[in-house]
Amino acid sequence: MAAPSPTPLLKDELDIVIPTIRNLDFLEMWRPFFQQYHLIIVQDGDPSKTINVPQGFDYELYNRNDINRILGPKASCISFKDSACRCFGYMVSKKKYIYTIDDDCFVAKDPSGKEINALEQHIKNLLSPSTPLFFNTLYDPYRDGADFVRGYPFSMREGVPTAVSHGLWLNIPDYDAPTQLVKPRERNTRYVDAVMTIPKGTLFPMCGMNLGFDRELIGPAMYFGLMGDGQPIGRYDDMWAGWCIKVICDHLGLGVKTGLPYIWHSKASNPFVNLRKEYKGIYWQEEIIPFFQAATLPKECTTVQQCYLELSKQVKAKLGKVDDYFIKLSDAMVTWIEAWDELNPSGAAAAADVKVKK
Amino acid sequence: MAAPSPTPLLKDELDIVIPTIRNLDFLEMWRPFFQQYHLIIVQDGDPSKTINVPQGFDYELYNRNDINRILGPKASCISFKDSACRCFGYMVSKKKYIYTIDDDCFVAKDPSGKEINALEQHIKNLLSPSTPLFFNTLYDPYRDGADFVRGYPFSMREGVPTAVSHGLWLNIPDYDAPTQLVKPRERNTRYVDAVMTIPKGTLFPMCGMNLGFDRELIGPAMYFGLMGDGQPIGRYDDMWAGWCIKVICDHLGLGVKTGLPYIWHSKASNPFVNLRKEYKGIYWQEEIIPFFQAATLPKECTTVQQCYLELSKQVKAKLGKVDDYFIKLSDAMVTWIEAWDELNPSGAAAAADVKVKK
Repeated sequence: MAAPSPTPLLKDELDIVIPTIRNLDFLEMWRPFFQQYHLIIVQDGDPSKTINVPQGFDYELYNRNDINRILGPKASCISFKDSACRCFGYMVSKKKYIYTIDDDCFVAKDPSGKEINALEQHIKNLLSPSTPLFFNTLYDPYRDGADFVRGYPFSMREGVPTAVSHGLWLNIPDYDAPTQLVKPRERNTRYVDAVMTIPKGTLFPMCGMNLGFDRELIGPAMYFGLMGDGQPIGRYDDMWAGWCIKVICDHLGLGVKTGLPYIWHSKASNPFVNLRKEYKGIYWQEEIIPFFQAATLPKECTTVQQCYLELSKQVKAKLGKVDDYFIKLSDAMVTWIEAWDELNPSGAAAAADVKVKK
Repeated sequence: MAAPSPTPLLKDELDIVIPTIRNLDFLEMWRPFFQQYHLIIVQDGDPSKTINVPQGFDYELYNRNDINRILGPKASCISFKDSACRCFGYMVSKKKYIYTIDDDCFVAKDPSGKEINALEQHIKNLLSPSTPLFFNTLYDPYRDGADFVRGYPFSMREGVPTAVSHGLWLNIPDYDAPTQLVKPRERNTRYVDAVMTIPKGTLFPMCGMNLGFDRELIGPAMYFGLMGDGQPIGRYDDMWAGWCIKVICDHLGLGVKTGLPYIWHSKASNPFVNLRKEYKGIYWQEEIIPFFQAATLPKECTTVQQCYLELSKQVKAKLGKVDDYFIKLSDAMVTWIEAWDELNPSGAAAAADVKVKK
């Protein structure tokens, strides 16, 4: 008789969101780590296609018809034919935490050869505080064997709640199309045994391949934008979300961590296809990033929803001049919040409540 | 016949500065890495004591009598009975780069068991650019096998010149006295294989145990303050320098890196003695750090000297209210710059030249 598996951390408080267009055979390798959690699968592309999910997983699956049925006209804010569609899963989840992973990501090994339980590390990252106000040279001070170094102000050692845990990838690095074209054989083989807080005021390129977050703290800002079918751009879904969440986390006093855990990224996507999807983003980002670096939110914005709606206005006013696409995106940001609040009425009520109390 | 040693990097452009009160037997272990460089030894404490330096090293040695003779009344800015005295070595050097190391630091090994050439790694850090304007999730993009990830703006990929390389320590961590007291057995055993830029606008606790910098870019700001004999505080020398250089590097568009290389820190200093030296610093830093976080320099300050003198004024005006010590420290900052320019007339002339050209 096999010993019963121990109950994993946050078993009933976390959903795993997977966007896909194919059978989910990759889950076989994740079985020891994922099987006790609930999965939310967002099927992209042709809704008449059947996605096979390996036996024994507990899941719900949404295709485009489901998204249209559930959101009605507001479904326009959910991208099609792009992994940005995954954010629909964040919206329909009823759990406090989300872990999202791409279906070409496998279990990586640490330098000792041990298989890495990526989800467990994300949970550790999310359940321990962040330190965005001052840099700790020994990295995450809350890890075993580490602490705050000499000169770290004691008043800052409690840290702030962690909203986002950004994990990394071994093997195929997450490069843009030009870098893929120039360095087709580059592989990431360096295992950096660190988790760190991205300092307040610093933006980063957030990758959606291996990402955990606290829905209650930051969920409504985790919108992956308008990408793919009918849009002038792709592959900027996670970047967009990363810029937005970082500005809002900084404003609300929440932390964003990056580093461990690693997953094994198996396949490089086609750089020629990527170039077509990305090329507008590559020049737009030269204006988008200074915009987000300069963005400030008024102190009246005390909920994620309020912050996000304020940011959508600034996007329209400032980035609307770069391209009409950003006017459409700004409107979609508003639609996203409306849809989020419709599906998450208690969160919306809580947000309104905060507003009234002020 | 032994093969001649290859010429090490920057052999004639770098001085190694070592503050000490004892015989320098620790150099034996560093012989393969340091012997071809020039050493500047700053002898602290009783000048009548003879410091033995192992045979075969090329060095100059300064004791307190030498410092008084060379600087005259300006010698008041150089601390006594504190490792802060090391900054005198930065001032008398004529080289472009400085590496400074404590005499209780030995050669560490990487996870493969290979001895780490710390100096070589510092030189690599200093000779490659920094990226303070945007965070790269794969750490130093200029290292072999790494690059800028997707979403990193192309306009920022040239980076900025690196002024400071802050190395870390295995074994005894660099903790303050309270943490030493609480965790007497903690050892740093985690080898984190990363170098990263500390983002613009983020302060960090700089440790002087294992530190490289570019004298031409930042030397005049690398003042270790008034510590030890006759002062109300000790063990904040490197912290003070770290706050000052970071504000000035951010203003001048220079980079500060931290991470590799590791050295092996052999001895924990006495936590009771440290507590006596540190306790004022522990509460003062609660006001000092917000001061430096808020400090801005006018755009007219285009040289390190100008920036440093401006900072000294702000220290007097703002921190002078915390304690009279900061008024004395502010004056010493001015004396330090005067002494620096006296010993480095070409640098002073160049600084003046920039001023005239504006």
